Amino acid sequence: MASMATLFAKTPTPSQPLPKSLNTHFIPRLKHAVLVRTGPRSRRSLRVSASLIEPDGGKLVELLVEERLRGEKRREAAGLPRIKLSRIDLEWVHVLSEGWASPIRGFMRESEFLQTLHFNALRLDDGSFVNMSVPIVLDIDDAQKRRIGESTRVALLDSADKVVAILNDIEIYKHHKEERIARTWGTTAPGLPYVDEAITNAGNWLIGGDLEVLEPIKYHDGLDRFRLSPAELREEFTKRNADAVFAFQLRNPVHNGHALLMTDTRRRLLEMGYKNPILLLHPLGGYTKADDVPLSWRMKQHEKVLEDGVLDPETTVVSIFPSPMHYAGPTEVQWHAKARINAGANFYIVGRDPAGMGHPIEKRDLYDADHGKKVLSMAPGLERLNILPFKVAAYDKTQGKMAFFDPSRAQDFLFISGTKMRTLARNKENPPEGFMCPGGWKVLVEYYDSLAVPAENGKVPQAVPA
Amino acid sequence: MASMATLFAKTPTPSQPLPKSLNTHFIPRLKHAVLVRTGPRSRRSLRVSASLIEPDGGKLVELLVEERLRGEKRREAAGLPRIKLSRIDLEWVHVLSEGWASPIRGFMRESEFLQTLHFNALRLDDGSFVNMSVPIVLDIDDAQKRRIGESTRVALLDSADKVVAILNDIEIYKHHKEERIARTWGTTAPGLPYVDEAITNAGNWLIGGDLEVLEPIKYHDGLDRFRLSPAELREEFTKRNADAVFAFQLRNPVHNGHALLMTDTRRRLLEMGYKNPILLLHPLGGYTKADDVPLSWRMKQHEKVLEDGVLDPETTVVSIFPSPMHYAGPTEVQWHAKARINAGANFYIVGRDPAGMGHPIEKRDLYDADHGKKVLSMAPGLERLNILPFKVAAYDKTQGKMAFFDPSRAQDFLFISGTKMRTLARNKENPPEGFMCPGGWKVLVEYYDSLAVPAENGKVPQAVPA
Repeated sequence: MASMATLFAKTPTPSQPLPKSLNTHFIPRLKHAVLVRTGPRSRRSLRVSASLIEPDGGKLVELLVEERLRGEKRREAAGLPRIKLSRIDLEWVHVLSEGWASPIRGFMRESEFLQTLHFNALRLDDGSFVNMSVPIVLDIDDAQKRRIGESTRVALLDSADKVVAILNDIEIYKHHKEERIARTWGTTAPGLPYVDEAITNAGNWLIGGDLEVLEPIKYHDGLDRFRLSPAELREEFTKRNADAVFAFQLRNPVHNGHALLMTDTRRRLLEMGYKNPILLLHPLGGYTKADDVPLSWRMKQHEKVLEDGVLDPETTVVSIFPSPMHYAGPTEVQWHAKARINAGANFYIVGRDPAGMGHPIEKRDLYDADHGKKVLSMAPGLERLNILPFKVAAYDKTQGKMAFFDPSRAQDFLFISGTKMRTLARNKENPPEGFMCPGGWKVLVEYYDSLAVPAENGKVPQAVPA
Repeated sequence: MASMATLFAKTPTPSQPLPKSLNTHFIPRLKHAVLVRTGPRSRRSLRVSASLIEPDGGKLVELLVEERLRGEKRREAAGLPRIKLSRIDLEWVHVLSEGWASPIRGFMRESEFLQTLHFNALRLDDGSFVNMSVPIVLDIDDAQKRRIGESTRVALLDSADKVVAILNDIEIYKHHKEERIARTWGTTAPGLPYVDEAITNAGNWLIGGDLEVLEPIKYHDGLDRFRLSPAELREEFTKRNADAVFAFQLRNPVHNGHALLMTDTRRRLLEMGYKNPILLLHPLGGYTKADDVPLSWRMKQHEKVLEDGVLDPETTVVSIFPSPMHYAGPTEVQWHAKARINAGANFYIVGRDPAGMGHPIEKRDLYDADHGKKVLSMAPGLERLNILPFKVAAYDKTQGKMAFFDPSRAQDFLFISGTKMRTLARNKENPPEGFMCPGGWKVLVEYYDSLAVPAENGKVPQAVPA
């Protein structure tokens, strides 16, 4: 993934010298206020600090314990009741530790949980609201609750029994699962992937509190260097002197329709008067359902697409968003957008049926395809974010490439759904030339090839509508 | 119900002279600003207008067509596509017409529907929020949608085919029933009363728009005179020179525990510095489930309780709240509170498990008993309302009367649940003396006696937990 390293931006640290190629795309950091044109938000050129959108609550909340205190905290943790984290729990610790969910300081207490479920927003002390649509909670069972007893703190352990964090000033409250599911997904139908994975068999209690995370969360999967924190991303955008940052959330392979959209968005932002809009291409890296293309393959595919030169390395930052996926449609898209504010994005591209999926037991999409962008545009706490609705791209047979759909000549366009794309790749067939760069397509074919050996349960994962 | 007329307050109109007894409790209306002590909200006596809390959005939205224009509107309506209203639909027209749901101007369009489902709040043009937790929507089926065609207006008809309103500038959108139910009730379990009554068999479309209501909605059940609009209530509170209005929502018979609570609330408000707190005793008058005590019997019961002199006529206004009941717990209690702001109440008494019920298919309450008051205290748009949590009253065996529960001598108290109360009344047994005034109890016994003839389906309605 050498070429990708030129696009994505790891903040240099003394212990980790940068590959030379990475530096070439850096723009010297600005020391002081400079003359910038701030785009449509002001009519005149103003002498302002080239600052990014503020994090929710005004300050990025990072929950990592300072290095010099870690030994002491580890000794404290040794004497505390212990909770073992699932993979998804650990992903949430990661999310919380870096401030993606700022201003919250740990797993939710009941007040935050209830506000999230009922209002998709948290009221701050000053009366203002920040968006928060997805419960970030940690469950425990009756036996764990008993073991915690009167303790006000617990230690959180990863799958290797290593202490990763301390949860302080804890509050234990009932885990009303049915209500949580109904209010988050708008259905209680069996077969919701996150529910099956993380809620159905979860404990009957939730435990909230303030997190102290003992060291940065790493997965040692070869992709950690792509996992930039909001602070690192902000530093990178500042270095590049971005005056607009537009985020593109994805959990699927990138085709040329996506690329067209991202390029076109940059063009529109330049037309609006921005001088240096930067794209945050931000694949989701946490839990995804079994039939999604796994992160490692997606990253390979993104690399090939980027090698192809469709996106400009100078104006693109590729990084992994560590959140797990809920597939909760209009509720979840708010979380996806809110987290990117904390990473410095002030524009968010939203597509058709974001974070949606097929209804688990009925023959229809779970969500209205337009609700995501509508809900996003109305959501409390997201007023500061500019929502950019996704234009529909399709394969234009007359041009032999992806283009924005023109309803006046609908017959010229071919829609290639996610299902269609996956079926083609699985059968080693090629899509029409110009749909995806050949290198990227090859990765997809390889991925489905790797699945041809039946999985443990004897089944090859089935495709579902994109 | 002569004695009740002395408590409730019908605004006099020229065509309807007031019974003499009613006038005796009126206090002359204040013409100008007066010196009032505004209670805990200010430390000094201020020269202010004795004004009530502002309606949501700043202005009470009444949707009644002026009398002089009604003939013309009726002629217009004759040429429009027609939609026949159910009893519940008509109750919502009533609610909307009088401004209980201010500032909304009719059945919800999709933008209001989505904000209600996702945020329990509507954002106004100035960026502020008003609370709105329960969808107020009108459904139509495919055939009705076809008949409406390109029309931008429809006429709404009551069960007698009389035009009651025109819906203008209509918007028709999909009725996502499962999602509506899950997000409103936090469950999709079969057997939710409002869902069975008004959603399961409803049409697949919702129609929103601006209402013009052709004349005040009346039910001709002998109780219309108790149905005061928010404007009429505000006029009454102003006449009485109220400097605080505390609302008590109920859909059950009143026992002495309730009375104790209301009296105690007034005492606390006086202690806080208010000079003339007025109680709005506000039974819900719209749709209720089959095993609730019907409105007419409840009003008879309330009358007897009031005759008993437990509540002071000088400081009590009894009126009927025309909304149908959702039994949607923490979601619905917000609606109950918000509607009372529009009627001039700035204090709201909230009990244990407000608007709750038993889970329709599991052996437990549907909602956490504490969630209602917690959600209410955090709800966007209700910041101006003072929430007064219900103190627990129980029968104190040592005093032979209802008293606030004292956990230090728990053994002295007897809890008489709604189920217990109904069982006693059904069996013509008496509760302990001091639980409810004898006249009120007699009404309850009579009601259950009237049910002894089996209903059409051969079943006597079963009691459920209160």
